Amino acid sequence: MTVIPVKHFPIERLREFSSRVFQHFGVPPADAEEAAGILAASDLRGIDSHGVARLRAYFEMLTLGRINPKPRITVLRETPSTASIDGDNGLGLVVGPWANRIAMEKAATAGTGWVSVGNSNHYGIAAWYVMEALKFDLIGWSMTNATRMVAPLWGAERMLGTNPIAIAFPGKEEPPIVIDMATCAVAFGKIEIARRKGIPIPEGWAIDGEGKATTDPVAMMMGGALLPLGSDRERGGHKGYALGIMVDVLCGVLGGANWGPFAPPFALRQQMPVRSVGKGIGHFFGAMRIDAFIDPDEFKRQIDDYVRTLRAAKPAPGTAGPLLPGDPEREAEAIRAREGVPLIGPVIDDLLDISKKTGIPLE
Amino acid sequence: MTVIPVKHFPIERLREFSSRVFQHFGVPPADAEEAAGILAASDLRGIDSHGVARLRAYFEMLTLGRINPKPRITVLRETPSTASIDGDNGLGLVVGPWANRIAMEKAATAGTGWVSVGNSNHYGIAAWYVMEALKFDLIGWSMTNATRMVAPLWGAERMLGTNPIAIAFPGKEEPPIVIDMATCAVAFGKIEIARRKGIPIPEGWAIDGEGKATTDPVAMMMGGALLPLGSDRERGGHKGYALGIMVDVLCGVLGGANWGPFAPPFALRQQMPVRSVGKGIGHFFGAMRIDAFIDPDEFKRQIDDYVRTLRAAKPAPGTAGPLLPGDPEREAEAIRAREGVPLIGPVIDDLLDISKKTGIPLE
Repeated sequence: MTVIPVKHFPIERLREFSSRVFQHFGVPPADAEEAAGILAASDLRGIDSHGVARLRAYFEMLTLGRINPKPRITVLRETPSTASIDGDNGLGLVVGPWANRIAMEKAATAGTGWVSVGNSNHYGIAAWYVMEALKFDLIGWSMTNATRMVAPLWGAERMLGTNPIAIAFPGKEEPPIVIDMATCAVAFGKIEIARRKGIPIPEGWAIDGEGKATTDPVAMMMGGALLPLGSDRERGGHKGYALGIMVDVLCGVLGGANWGPFAPPFALRQQMPVRSVGKGIGHFFGAMRIDAFIDPDEFKRQIDDYVRTLRAAKPAPGTAGPLLPGDPEREAEAIRAREGVPLIGPVIDDLLDISKKTGIPLE
Repeated sequence: MTVIPVKHFPIERLREFSSRVFQHFGVPPADAEEAAGILAASDLRGIDSHGVARLRAYFEMLTLGRINPKPRITVLRETPSTASIDGDNGLGLVVGPWANRIAMEKAATAGTGWVSVGNSNHYGIAAWYVMEALKFDLIGWSMTNATRMVAPLWGAERMLGTNPIAIAFPGKEEPPIVIDMATCAVAFGKIEIARRKGIPIPEGWAIDGEGKATTDPVAMMMGGALLPLGSDRERGGHKGYALGIMVDVLCGVLGGANWGPFAPPFALRQQMPVRSVGKGIGHFFGAMRIDAFIDPDEFKRQIDDYVRTLRAAKPAPGTAGPLLPGDPEREAEAIRAREGVPLIGPVIDDLLDISKKTGIPLE
């Protein structure tokens, strides 16, 4: 096994660097701060693929004018509990929080708020939005579509994004349950890691360019595809595929954005879709006031009981028993807030290159 | 392989029989008709486990007074877009449609409607409710919790129900996309079929009473558990587990119902939970007006394009290419509307026994 050397960076330094890079392109300071905060939340929570490791892609898109640094975000339609929004091709990290706030404002008066978003770009980790909702005693929902990477069950080509779903529920004394899950069997990052290490991937993760099951990470990367959650028909792959469609329709179709194989890529080196069926990519946000359904204090005490009940379940052999969704991320956050965020060489090189081109110091 | 003999029954006969059985216990005629319609929809769509095969359990619960045939359903709380409902221990097949109508009515004025339900019972197939919403150009959501059957990832005991999620999207010329999926890897019915045939089950479906992976259907049935969608950690079992929690919290906790291992059983022979944390079981319904987000005609044309695009995907080897969610059920419906519903001997025996006890003729 190759040991990959890492260097630790304080989260505040990474956050400030990202914010200044966004501002370098004319992103207004408040927007840049919020966008950098989303990347930092990802790095803190251990979701390395969605933090500063992505700054290079944002940098390139902004450099080429492919993303609008100062979008005029508009509400296209609204009802007491809904809105649909055009993100004016802004950073998803700016459009997303804007739309999420509308959902939360609608909830204040209508009980719930639901916002579809089109003409946007990559919005970071889905969990960030539902954690914002927690601050206001709201149950938040967050979904986004993304460039194609996943095959439909029985398909031999990439047709859907990894299309995550996030939702969170607050406890009273226990930490919240924070769900944030892609609708495919495994993250693309794990394929990349296996390729770098030169090891095979488990069955059920991917197919090759012919649509055959493969354990070769290179075969997946060179024209193959990820498999939906459930992997194959026997183990419920049609369900993960259906979830991927659900997210894609709510975000892409309902948001007036591109969907399925037509969602534009996040990074420059990825292939452009063969046609356009909407604007940019799409998101979908929801916010539900707990007191619209039940006494919030009662709800939170029940969540405490829920968390404790599941933690007390008899452990499977060789395990310490069930975790709750959000546990691994909270543990990572405690460590990284103290010790800094470990970045690998190629990511540091990217940041240094951005530093050189913009004149913004990294350290 | 054992061939299981079946006899075909016209759907109208089964529907009428169920309706009369419900009325026999004092269920008002309109409620009984609707409840019987939900069972018939299940039988027509090929979901044999949720149709008249369950009439015996409803019959027993009604005979013993465990289900209230004439519930006084009440709204506990409401806002412009929400309501929470107490089902007064009625049939889920009566409480569910009632709550679903409230969600649809809320949507008419607020853009969307969201209803949590407690003190209810088994509500049939989740898909029925979202297909109702389709009639009014609404995107319907439907979820329910259920008695424990599924282990949490890394747990060695049943803690969650099969907790399904349904949602549907209308097309213009193409049939709607109808998603209805349990959040476990496989339906319990498939374990029973393997047991009856004396064949092993695939890996990834179940654990035994010690929490170890098993391919023995009997080991699952005797104190084991189903696995969540994704099966194990490597293939995303934590995601199926998280989805199961999501449905359980929205239905059970938000509905003031029992949740997790405390959800009461559907049938008499199942074990009673060790304690009660709410009333009955819970459901969660949503209804979203399409025109609250986008022009409905545009939406439907995009869904047509979506369906055709996925059908045109390159097929995986040995398959005819991807299906769309709802395809298998629609095909079953076309056949069964014509040829009748095939029932196996034990189910016919149950119906004949009910016929004898109630005096309602089956044929």
